[in-house]
Amino acid sequence: MKAVQITQWCARFITEQVQPGDICIDATMGNGNDTLLLCSLCQETGHVYAFDIQEQALAHTRQKLQNADVPTNYTLLLESHANMDHYVQPDSVSCIVFNLGYLPGGDHTKATLASSSIEALTKSLSLLKKGGLISLCIYSGGDSGFEERDAVLSWLKNLDSHKYLVIRSDYYNRPNNPPIPVLIIRQ
Amino acid sequence: MKAVQITQWCARFITEQVQPGDICIDATMGNGNDTLLLCSLCQETGHVYAFDIQEQALAHTRQKLQNADVPTNYTLLLESHANMDHYVQPDSVSCIVFNLGYLPGGDHTKATLASSSIEALTKSLSLLKKGGLISLCIYSGGDSGFEERDAVLSWLKNLDSHKYLVIRSDYYNRPNNPPIPVLIIRQ
Repeated sequence: MKAVQITQWCARFITEQVQPGDICIDATMGNGNDTLLLCSLCQETGHVYAFDIQEQALAHTRQKLQNADVPTNYTLLLESHANMDHYVQPDSVSCIVFNLGYLPGGDHTKATLASSSIEALTKSLSLLKKGGLISLCIYSGGDSGFEERDAVLSWLKNLDSHKYLVIRSDYYNRPNNPPIPVLIIRQ
Repeated sequence: MKAVQITQWCARFITEQVQPGDICIDATMGNGNDTLLLCSLCQETGHVYAFDIQEQALAHTRQKLQNADVPTNYTLLLESHANMDHYVQPDSVSCIVFNLGYLPGGDHTKATLASSSIEALTKSLSLLKKGGLISLCIYSGGDSGFEERDAVLSWLKNLDSHKYLVIRSDYYNRPNNPPIPVLIIRQ
């Protein structure tokens, strides 16, 4: 088995999940890597709604999608992910991707925050269809601190185990607070 | 994504790892489910060494393998897994499977113990080839208590991150001390 980087770890589950025709959400567009992956997986019959509150994220992502050979199956929104329920129907989404922390290479003061992240995650649950997947990667330490991480982990721990399966994975022997990938599966 | 049971979670990584011709070890034969999986994956050109210290485990496993349509590519050993280095060469093994705790349906007083488990895990590391995988599932609570779990987790935490990648996964919102699946990849 090749040593699996954390972004590859998340991508493998997203890739297994998303089928042509699926509706997907990139809740934290950032530099658009996950938006691109989702667009290529759900193909021209699917659709990706991607959210960010920074213009820079939309510009980078738009450029990335135009350079890649993906269909125009996306909507890029300069909008808080806490409003994702304005754009898609309940029980309809196959896959929602969150990367919590700050935009890599961007403004570290514009990190996601515990309160709005948990609000968005709560809405995400209602949008997921049965068998749907949330891929959540929690970045912490450095400028981000640990408040958001701890609040989100506490929220995850208390999700109803009859409705959702939460699998938290830790890069357990790696120093310096590596990101924590989490899968939430609606049962 | 279907709700993934913990045994299925382990099996998916074992299945990805093992190729025809590989040498594999089932360090805790138990009822032989993993021995059977390994035998079917490494095929007639590979070989599986399976260890248990209980006669009952060998009898159940032998029956299971004979009932299934797998080649006779296995050696079942009534022997402590701490002696696995007597049977295979260093740097040669593709996949080693451990289930720590007691034999399901067997004698709960004959659980694995922290000291011999860590001895066997340490030897396992030296037997793994580059890119090799240890799939380790830690059962705790009930008659097993938590001493072995805590000792093994501490050992894992301190493995050299330049040589080994340790990915610990937790069924995070499930009550009653669910088993903890761990992947150790030799880099």
